[in-house]
Amino acid sequence: MKNTRPIGIFDSGVGGLTVLRQVEKLLPRENIVYFGDTARVPYGNKSRAAVLRFSAESFRFLTEKKVKMGIVACNTSSSLALMSLRRMFPFPVLGVVEAGVRGALRRTRKKRIGVIGTRATIKSGSYERAILRQEPKAKIFSEACPLFVPLAEEGITRGNLVQQVIDRYLRGMRSHRIDTLILGCTHYPLLKTALSRYFGAATEIVDSAEEVALFTRKILEEYEIKGSPRRKGKVEFYVSDEPEGFSRMAGLFLRRKVLVPKVVYVSH
Amino acid sequence: MKNTRPIGIFDSGVGGLTVLRQVEKLLPRENIVYFGDTARVPYGNKSRAAVLRFSAESFRFLTEKKVKMGIVACNTSSSLALMSLRRMFPFPVLGVVEAGVRGALRRTRKKRIGVIGTRATIKSGSYERAILRQEPKAKIFSEACPLFVPLAEEGITRGNLVQQVIDRYLRGMRSHRIDTLILGCTHYPLLKTALSRYFGAATEIVDSAEEVALFTRKILEEYEIKGSPRRKGKVEFYVSDEPEGFSRMAGLFLRRKVLVPKVVYVSH
Repeated sequence: MKNTRPIGIFDSGVGGLTVLRQVEKLLPRENIVYFGDTARVPYGNKSRAAVLRFSAESFRFLTEKKVKMGIVACNTSSSLALMSLRRMFPFPVLGVVEAGVRGALRRTRKKRIGVIGTRATIKSGSYERAILRQEPKAKIFSEACPLFVPLAEEGITRGNLVQQVIDRYLRGMRSHRIDTLILGCTHYPLLKTALSRYFGAATEIVDSAEEVALFTRKILEEYEIKGSPRRKGKVEFYVSDEPEGFSRMAGLFLRRKVLVPKVVYVSH
Repeated sequence: MKNTRPIGIFDSGVGGLTVLRQVEKLLPRENIVYFGDTARVPYGNKSRAAVLRFSAESFRFLTEKKVKMGIVACNTSSSLALMSLRRMFPFPVLGVVEAGVRGALRRTRKKRIGVIGTRATIKSGSYERAILRQEPKAKIFSEACPLFVPLAEEGITRGNLVQQVIDRYLRGMRSHRIDTLILGCTHYPLLKTALSRYFGAATEIVDSAEEVALFTRKILEEYEIKGSPRRKGKVEFYVSDEPEGFSRMAGLFLRRKVLVPKVVYVSH
């Protein structure tokens, strides 16, 4: 029995396209509906109450699109709203945080794990809790890096300026000799090369987007809701604010052109 | 006849506190209601439609507070929504753009004026139009500087990193030997020292916040709606998202402590 209903991917904005890209690559036959809450982006500096409200409103839109499962691509929303979303919606909901943690635990040898993300993600302690639940002996070092998102969105992803900003935030973490670094924000894969250079080859970098794709396949198999094996999947894009900026940045994140997304006002 | 109703100051977030600070200083006997739309900040990367909608919703809240005039402290909103707000609301509405332009035209000698702001402000061409209306011979050089806001909010306002970011955006503008630079974003006064250092003493820097305060006094006099001369004014703070981040940053912008603001959901 095949299930051709779409997978829903929700992000606060454009960053979740790094997740879409990996899901498309691994599961090319699935239909996908992407929703970016570009009217209220970013979530990383908002309160828990606001993130809960915005996430639920966004998921209500995905429900209208009859998705068979939902992926919370936004780390801030995964950190603050995942449990609420699971209670509120009747389909499997997967978050980037648990996916990133799975990837890190599979790779770490010394159990010295670094986590970087927005202020809200780091403050929530979500990665820390999820890691310690599965690996109580892990040593975790976390740091909020608020300038990384604007740097990535400006297309400034390598060079001296980037290394200086990285050094400003992560000098302490590097001195703790972590062997695994979780990129706890959808924008950060754009800085992966610069971060690799900073931490050196002894530190493995976990891109949650890749892990989400693997985890998504597992859920589709477990729930027996995989799409048709015969034809290529369709991807639809929706945003809550006018699509110009979205299209401009989509190329950076997705490395291919995106049809102009449709605008929906989720808060009304 | 004295009018003790408050002056309303609206901003997309915390940046408008630079305006509040100057208004308080010049008009210490006025009551003020400040509203920051922290649930949807920033406006600088949103569409015209979204900025219009958010601004009108925010002004509706100020109307409930029975303000005698409204100040649009947000440059993006001033650039995109001022005329609509004037049509929609029955009290005088003043924007930072016109105030900044007044200040620049008073100071420039060579009529070579630089304007910096968010992407939305610069793209709107609002400063350019306002300057040319009054001074058709002016030469105007504009540049969007999206990293300045996150730098200011991170408290990174001087040093090598800041000079590098400034150089990245403004090397071209400096080569045009402007004699006046308008800070077209409420956050930018925090980078004033760094910008002065970059442009040198021959370039005067116009902080729109100071100009708004002067312009506000003029409006109060013209409309004969000045407050009581006898007692110190009261300031009330409201935000559309939980106040923690607001309070954390208020010190940076206002250089004094702020009572915890009240939360109002303007979009409902």
